[in-house]
Amino acid sequence: MSFRGVLVPVATPFTADLAPDKGKFIALCKAFLAQGVAGLAIFGTTSEANSISGDERMRLLEQLVASGVPAEKLMPGTGGCSITEAVVLTRHAVRQGCGGVLLLPPFFYKGVSDDGIFAFVEHIIQDVSEDGLKIYLYHIPPMAQVGFSVELVGRLHGAYPDTVVGLKDSSGDWSNTEALIKAYPQMKIFPGSEIFLLDALRAGGAGCITATANLNARMISASYKCWQEPGADARQQTITKIRKAVQTIGPLVPVIKSYLALKTGDPGWSVVRPPLIAMPEDVVVELDKELTGLGYEFPGVT
Amino acid sequence: MSFRGVLVPVATPFTADLAPDKGKFIALCKAFLAQGVAGLAIFGTTSEANSISGDERMRLLEQLVASGVPAEKLMPGTGGCSITEAVVLTRHAVRQGCGGVLLLPPFFYKGVSDDGIFAFVEHIIQDVSEDGLKIYLYHIPPMAQVGFSVELVGRLHGAYPDTVVGLKDSSGDWSNTEALIKAYPQMKIFPGSEIFLLDALRAGGAGCITATANLNARMISASYKCWQEPGADARQQTITKIRKAVQTIGPLVPVIKSYLALKTGDPGWSVVRPPLIAMPEDVVVELDKELTGLGYEFPGVT
Repeated sequence: MSFRGVLVPVATPFTADLAPDKGKFIALCKAFLAQGVAGLAIFGTTSEANSISGDERMRLLEQLVASGVPAEKLMPGTGGCSITEAVVLTRHAVRQGCGGVLLLPPFFYKGVSDDGIFAFVEHIIQDVSEDGLKIYLYHIPPMAQVGFSVELVGRLHGAYPDTVVGLKDSSGDWSNTEALIKAYPQMKIFPGSEIFLLDALRAGGAGCITATANLNARMISASYKCWQEPGADARQQTITKIRKAVQTIGPLVPVIKSYLALKTGDPGWSVVRPPLIAMPEDVVVELDKELTGLGYEFPGVT
Repeated sequence: MSFRGVLVPVATPFTADLAPDKGKFIALCKAFLAQGVAGLAIFGTTSEANSISGDERMRLLEQLVASGVPAEKLMPGTGGCSITEAVVLTRHAVRQGCGGVLLLPPFFYKGVSDDGIFAFVEHIIQDVSEDGLKIYLYHIPPMAQVGFSVELVGRLHGAYPDTVVGLKDSSGDWSNTEALIKAYPQMKIFPGSEIFLLDALRAGGAGCITATANLNARMISASYKCWQEPGADARQQTITKIRKAVQTIGPLVPVIKSYLALKTGDPGWSVVRPPLIAMPEDVVVELDKELTGLGYEFPGVT
């Protein structure tokens, strides 16, 4: 099985003292599956994964699987700056039965070579040494700076065609996503925003993995499922407008979490770990007016 | 006690299978102390700290202290992208008796606010809650992108004057280092390169913490100790020329490690963890010719 469709990089709820809120997290994951998404890309950028230690992530994953969420629907982020940490997290995810992992490149050193990133990924594959390992490369140059070039993706997929099976492209650059889809039709390529969903599907892409699915999973999933039905362009326009309203008003992660707090009436949703900072309420009240005008309906978190 | 003088961000030797080489690491640390440095900033950028897991770093630190190296001479890097990991590493370093810690800002999210970085550091200080904690902020925008602005340094030092006691400035921008020294004369400010050593000392800085001390600890330490003696400018010129030769020929960490391999005749020194890549031998042979012409003498690693 490989992933196809809309995946949510699930926001990680925290308690007031900044511990992961297991109960809210599990409920949120189940809500998204009920809203029709194909999978859960937990521990991504929107999940504040790099603000959560490896041990905390492994415990949360175990609790999520134990709660009955099917592990094959999970694509946890398991990257890190060190091969040792990435190996531990990746092996753990495979042994939990996860359908795939989303792998960041090592992102501390800048200006590193493709050879160095290739060696990093290869080392993880060889050290983890599990047949069930399915890697989705995570290209997000706005945050990681270090990225997977189109050529490097080809080298990795060529060397490990059954393991390096897909990519999430959060470059925000459609021409890069399109180049990847055209170059590697066997791979599952996901743009990192629903703005490119219809374009990606028409070009041969696999769906999208998008932060704003935390707010709009039902509508984005419907757009995916009906993309060959009449009205696809109109549906795309609506989800694009909603996405743009959200991403324009402030930094994506705090906006999403503070908006969840507004819509649920539970201020606990707005808690982020430093260095992120929660949004002032007036900003999300403003966003709410704008979204309502666009026909948006909050699908809930439980 | 606070640090003053030349500190080495000690290169971390690895075995052929990329495990930390404890024996070589301890010998190297002892060699630098014998060569006259004031302290060891282990687990910095040159140490490939972010390529080494937290558990590996804690074990190495324990082994180093157990080997008889005085803990008060150690300033380990204990930063990370997550408060949970930074708290564990920082508390561990304090309990091992380290004279200070070098704290990176969280470096995954970009474009974060000073308020967010302040909250990150404050959370660590409050959570660690150890009187012995002495934080040296680690400003290295070429790698971390996220940095400590001059104003933010003042806010942190103002709020925690007995805890936030110093800073390493690896911006490479002397005007920034000078602004910090002038603004916060009570703090120990270390430029991240010996190129600025004499300028820093004359302005009121505390010394330097520099990658190339891995190759040239004796000469840089002598420049520090005799900075008010005749010939200081000439000595500064020599160490500056040597530094520039090293940093111009290739990426600093692989150049330093491959050069150690050349000078010791032990190829094991050249091993780096991905995403870094060892330097070709001809590059360091070329460097060796250049350094010899500048009057450089290799002080040894044992």
